[in-house]
Amino acid sequence: MNVATPITAASRVSITPRVREILSWYESDNPGTKGNIYRLLMTGKLAGTGKLVILPVDQGFEHGPARSFSVNPAAYDPHYHYQLAIDAGLNAYAAPIGMLEAGADTFAGQIPTILKMNSANSLSRLNEDADQAVTASVSDAVRLGCSAIGFTIYPGSDQAYDQMEELRELANEAKSVGLAVVVWSYARGGELDKAGETSADVIAYAAHIATLMGAHIIKVKPPSDKIALSAAKKAYDKGKIELGTLSDRISDVVKSCFNGRRIVIFSGGEAKDSADAVVDEIKQIAAGGGFGSIMGRNAFQRPRDEAIKLLDRIIEVYKAAP
Amino acid sequence: MNVATPITAASRVSITPRVREILSWYESDNPGTKGNIYRLLMTGKLAGTGKLVILPVDQGFEHGPARSFSVNPAAYDPHYHYQLAIDAGLNAYAAPIGMLEAGADTFAGQIPTILKMNSANSLSRLNEDADQAVTASVSDAVRLGCSAIGFTIYPGSDQAYDQMEELRELANEAKSVGLAVVVWSYARGGELDKAGETSADVIAYAAHIATLMGAHIIKVKPPSDKIALSAAKKAYDKGKIELGTLSDRISDVVKSCFNGRRIVIFSGGEAKDSADAVVDEIKQIAAGGGFGSIMGRNAFQRPRDEAIKLLDRIIEVYKAAP
Amino acid sequence: MNVATPITAASRVSITPRVREILSWYESDNPGTKGNIYRLLMTGKLAGTGKLVILPVDQGFEHGPARSFSVNPAAYDPHYHYQLAIDAGLNAYAAPIGMLEAGADTFAGQIPTILKMNSANSLSRLNEDADQAVTASVSDAVRLGCSAIGFTIYPGSDQAYDQMEELRELANEAKSVGLAVVVWSYARGGELDKAGETSADVIAYAAHIATLMGAHIIKVKPPSDKIALSAAKKAYDKGKIELGTLSDRISDVVKSCFNGRRIVIFSGGEAKDSADAVVDEIKQIAAGGGFGSIMGRNAFQRPRDEAIKLLDRIIEVYKAAP
Amino acid sequence: MNVATPITAASRVSITPRVREILSWYESDNPGTKGNIYRLLMTGKLAGTGKLVILPVDQGFEHGPARSFSVNPAAYDPHYHYQLAIDAGLNAYAAPIGMLEAGADTFAGQIPTILKMNSANSLSRLNEDADQAVTASVSDAVRLGCSAIGFTIYPGSDQAYDQMEELRELANEAKSVGLAVVVWSYARGGELDKAGETSADVIAYAAHIATLMGAHIIKVKPPSDKIALSAAKKAYDKGKIELGTLSDRISDVVKSCFNGRRIVIFSGGEAKDSADAVVDEIKQIAAGGGFGSIMGRNAFQRPRDEAIKLLDRIIEVYKAAP
Amino acid sequence: MNVATPITAASRVSITPRVREILSWYESDNPGTKGNIYRLLMTGKLAGTGKLVILPVDQGFEHGPARSFSVNPAAYDPHYHYQLAIDAGLNAYAAPIGMLEAGADTFAGQIPTILKMNSANSLSRLNEDADQAVTASVSDAVRLGCSAIGFTIYPGSDQAYDQMEELRELANEAKSVGLAVVVWSYARGGELDKAGETSADVIAYAAHIATLMGAHIIKVKPPSDKIALSAAKKAYDKGKIELGTLSDRISDVVKSCFNGRRIVIFSGGEAKDSADAVVDEIKQIAAGGGFGSIMGRNAFQRPRDEAIKLLDRIIEVYKAAP
Repeated sequence: MNVATPITAASRVSITPRVREILSWYESDNPGTKGNIYRLLMTGKLAGTGKLVILPVDQGFEHGPARSFSVNPAAYDPHYHYQLAIDAGLNAYAAPIGMLEAGADTFAGQIPTILKMNSANSLSRLNEDADQAVTASVSDAVRLGCSAIGFTIYPGSDQAYDQMEELRELANEAKSVGLAVVVWSYARGGELDKAGETSADVIAYAAHIATLMGAHIIKVKPPSDKIALSAAKKAYDKGKIELGTLSDRISDVVKSCFNGRRIVIFSGGEAKDSADAVVDEIKQIAAGGGFGSIMGRNAFQRPRDEAIKLLDRIIEVYKAAP
Repeated sequence: MNVATPITAASRVSITPRVREILSWYESDNPGTKGNIYRLLMTGKLAGTGKLVILPVDQGFEHGPARSFSVNPAAYDPHYHYQLAIDAGLNAYAAPIGMLEAGADTFAGQIPTILKMNSANSLSRLNEDADQAVTASVSDAVRLGCSAIGFTIYPGSDQAYDQMEELRELANEAKSVGLAVVVWSYARGGELDKAGETSADVIAYAAHIATLMGAHIIKVKPPSDKIALSAAKKAYDKGKIELGTLSDRISDVVKSCFNGRRIVIFSGGEAKDSADAVVDEIKQIAAGGGFGSIMGRNAFQRPRDEAIKLLDRIIEVYKAAP
Repeated sequence: MNVATPITAASRVSITPRVREILSWYESDNPGTKGNIYRLLMTGKLAGTGKLVILPVDQGFEHGPARSFSVNPAAYDPHYHYQLAIDAGLNAYAAPIGMLEAGADTFAGQIPTILKMNSANSLSRLNEDADQAVTASVSDAVRLGCSAIGFTIYPGSDQAYDQMEELRELANEAKSVGLAVVVWSYARGGELDKAGETSADVIAYAAHIATLMGAHIIKVKPPSDKIALSAAKKAYDKGKIELGTLSDRISDVVKSCFNGRRIVIFSGGEAKDSADAVVDEIKQIAAGGGFGSIMGRNAFQRPRDEAIKLLDRIIEVYKAAP
Repeated sequence: MNVATPITAASRVSITPRVREILSWYESDNPGTKGNIYRLLMTGKLAGTGKLVILPVDQGFEHGPARSFSVNPAAYDPHYHYQLAIDAGLNAYAAPIGMLEAGADTFAGQIPTILKMNSANSLSRLNEDADQAVTASVSDAVRLGCSAIGFTIYPGSDQAYDQMEELRELANEAKSVGLAVVVWSYARGGELDKAGETSADVIAYAAHIATLMGAHIIKVKPPSDKIALSAAKKAYDKGKIELGTLSDRISDVVKSCFNGRRIVIFSGGEAKDSADAVVDEIKQIAAGGGFGSIMGRNAFQRPRDEAIKLLDRIIEVYKAAP
Repeated sequence: MNVATPITAASRVSITPRVREILSWYESDNPGTKGNIYRLLMTGKLAGTGKLVILPVDQGFEHGPARSFSVNPAAYDPHYHYQLAIDAGLNAYAAPIGMLEAGADTFAGQIPTILKMNSANSLSRLNEDADQAVTASVSDAVRLGCSAIGFTIYPGSDQAYDQMEELRELANEAKSVGLAVVVWSYARGGELDKAGETSADVIAYAAHIATLMGAHIIKVKPPSDKIALSAAKKAYDKGKIELGTLSDRISDVVKSCFNGRRIVIFSGGEAKDSADAVVDEIKQIAAGGGFGSIMGRNAFQRPRDEAIKLLDRIIEVYKAAP
């Protein structure tokens, strides 16, 4: 593995009008935080476009090492993921503390990193209302040279308020030291059933909550065409909001994030065998105004060459987006 | 949207005897806090009258974005609300941290802001005794240039004592850095039923608790003509306190707030189709000695022109009040 | 209301042997705390006698404003209570933070104040084992110029150990900044029934616990002639301790507070129609060696003139006490 | 009461080889802590022998004042206990914060004191798994000039881990400011029955846990000849450990405390009518290598003269011990 | 016991290529932490080989003193264990705070020590989902001159997230002061049965979680040939991962710890009568790429000479490993 690979030319472009516009939305932030949002937006093949593709690798925590890496054993090595993100020309790499520590020095400065601050694991009782463990501190993010912290909340769960209060403290501290804040907002638990978690209204609501809490970047799942809450149904009807296509629903989520004034990105979901299926979904996300994708298992569970090819196709979709 | 709109002439008047009197009630506060109460009372069309109309926008947290903004899509944009509050000549704008961050720099100094510190959401199990999430810190209020913090307590709920202790800490810190403290006091939970929450005795009690806890401004709902607690019934009879009209009941609430020595304002409740119905209620609040209104959905769920017209009528009612 | 009323002559007497003796009991305290105990003992008509009558006004929190003030509407105004305590020549005025803030500047220095740090309210589920909310901080007491903090514990309740730990922290901090500590010790909850709460053995035990925790002044209810705990019954028999009259029982409580080395005062209980009934009880408290009374509803629920007359009679009883 | 009584000659002896040896066991401690262990070992009639007799007075918290003091009313006065410990030539006096505050200045320097940091009370629901209230801070021990803090843990109870964590924090802080740490280790709760609490294996286990947690001095009850845990039974058989006499069992407890490298002392239990019965138990403790006794009710519930005579006999037993 | 025994020659070798390689994996750590990992790897007979054998003595906490030490009474003395680890030429000695305090000065510098920060005990209710008590602080590890802290987590238990958050705080603080972090990762509780705790997939998962949390050294039990989670079964099949022999399974665990970039060591389990059985297991661990053993009861419950002989055989196995 050649760790000396130079950063792709794309990340050396100078600031573009679009990036300047996006930065203008984060008007309350200090120059440190703006600098880190700049780094996220100005790295990799999408540098300057205002779009992002991020590699997240926290599946080992959630599902264990075999389920995460057995199909592509090279991925057991933490350096693999840093290098994959760099070579694929992605904007950033996100992982739990141990994963970042294992490559923080070797790859220092070569790719912006996002320290994932909390995680669940599938050894625990299957309880949708369980909390996650906070496994890192803002001071860890600082010493590891990260650009952002990442934090998961489960709006709707019985632990949601406690999680939000943890997020408040971490976000407040992160912003004060010039880091950006990325929130994984996954509605679940309480009275929501499985279908409700990804219904169009609930995804938009979860994204909106993260936005209200001061997230710089919001990550949600692609919304389905269902509506879970009857009061929301009436409001969608009243406002004549289209939800027919994925691209319509993405638009609604983007609008729900301060009318497009916040970066909202979408997860790739479970590993799909067909690369085309992945790309088709991305096209709709892009068409709806989504700012990008955070693509884990669909990247690192493929052989490295296939993964880079797929990521390239995704990047091309976003480059072509309006 | 013209963000350069100059502040209305009204907010440049110099201090009036009434404002001087009101400030004299806050005799334990430091000049920083008094200065911020001054700012709240000396901004907008009601500047100097001792009356206030405030725009609160936290419904997105409570009900989701579609239910809040679909009927008036311009309101998805956080700048919309700042501008609406400024253009309508209101005294202040209150919102959660994300909403304020999104306009704090563009509108810096143009309108006093109140950082809403805690919020609930309707994805959570419908449990009247649930807590709220504290989503911001006093240091956030300071860096965003706010004039006050806003905090909700639910007296009567099983979480009430914990909420009060959170309020104690935040209020103590807020006062020490020269901010004002606005308390939303909504009795609910425990043994109170729905009708009890807005009964005349319970609203007065909830307002009194907020006052005892050191709130500078208390926000409650307009009280109904019911009495929920039998021990209170006897006391109202003994004291021959009139509760027949809304204006009587407002008087009782104002008296319960240190005999009128604290600013107590009233919420507008659910969006009403008829602007006249809204104005009629305001007339009774004003007649009873209420200090003003905090008017959310009735403002931002109307088209902007209608909203400004309605707010103007409300302002005129308060201006004409004794 | 004449806020310029000079402090009564009594509070200008110089230190008496009795006060010197009482101060000697607080041998571990710093001069700041001793100075505040001095202030409590050297103010009002009882100055120098070693006896105290204190006005507490926290009933609004516990029972709501109508039940507290409707029979004497002047009492809705926080200034009323400061002035009543001053004009009646009392030793101190105790109230929650909001009440003190509302007059702290107007009456600064004219009467020692005790900041009541925690409160319950009757909107909450009727649960004898519920906690109270801590609604103020020691730094509030300092900035408001108070002489002491006041804190309620419920020995016997399921929350008692948590309350005691709160008291430990507040008392430690209060003593470190030169404040005195007054503890309301009300046994309740757990396996105690209503009669048990005021039984002679339980009152003495509750007072003793407050003493052991380092309280400077202990407030309990007047004990009844019942004994609640059978193990205590045997001990009272063994020690041949008389409990027949209220005065006997008061003696036992005073002895239980370090053999008289701590100030223990007694509450007045519910408002009584007959002033004579109030005075008769005080006579027994004084005869038993009680250090004074804390008299709320029996004071402020009477018309001001009647209240001052009644308080005068009470003061005369204590003056005449041995 | 003559507070000017000079310290007994015994406490002016210079360091003995035995005390030097004992101090050598506390090899990780700073000179402050060693100095305080020295003070405990070099005070009173047993000064220099390496043995200790300590007077603890926390029964008022646990059982109330009447059950503690009615049979010897002089003991209601906190000064009584200081003077008793001094006049009887004991090594130290241990009590809750209020008791120490009441004599800390009068008796400053005349007897080492141990601040008992936590207490239970018998008003609370009878729940073996209940916690205790922490009623003092290390800073209290410092300002009161104490030599050590005392803390109770209940290994086996459902609260044991929380108590251990409280002990960790207090012990760490105490050691950092040069205080010694005395742990009352009383197994109870969980699945232990009453007999199990004092069984030989459980007492040794409880003592060992306190030792492992870094206690300088461990206090347990004298062990009975029962074995509560079947796995322990096998181990005792395998190791051929004698448990037939109390002296055998004391030896096993001492060995379980780092093979005799920690000071372990034994409580006197309930007040016994017969002084001879008390002394007989002490003889066995001494024969087994116990380092001393902590004797409360058997001391202060006797008339002063009888108490001093009994304590003298106990001291003579320890003096004569090998 | 001769405490002046010189450190074995082996610990004076200079850095080897293998140790240099291992240190390179800890690329995010400060020189203090790297220095302590160096000390662990460069002490004892295995110095320079990259292999470790560690003596842990926390069984007294877990099982009581008799079950731990009765068969080899010399082991009641804390000095015994320090000396055993030194004389056997081990890499380090791990124990709770009290045990280390008892020898920290006598053996200062002679053997690296690991402060075991949390412990359970068998007096507590047998509840697999119970927490452990945290019994020491990082500042204790610093003042005792330790090289590392040791912490147990129970992934899968209902307390696991709280434990992980405790680990986060302690690990963050430990790294900041230059200590190494050793994690005992024992899956248990929740829905895992006894067999599941040591199944191959669960051990690998538990080791992976510790790695992700930033542990420098991970300790797990040797895995059995079972697979507990059906989703894992599929992944093992898909990846064609061999689990037939213990050595295969050890390889899988090592791979699950960042593909061999973290030190993972294995416990010795219950005391085995046959030394050969112990050595046979070690051979498989070594063949699978395990970095070493942590051997408690199999060491200190044997007579000293036998223990040293057995440890010597184990060391020889690791020396001979590839």
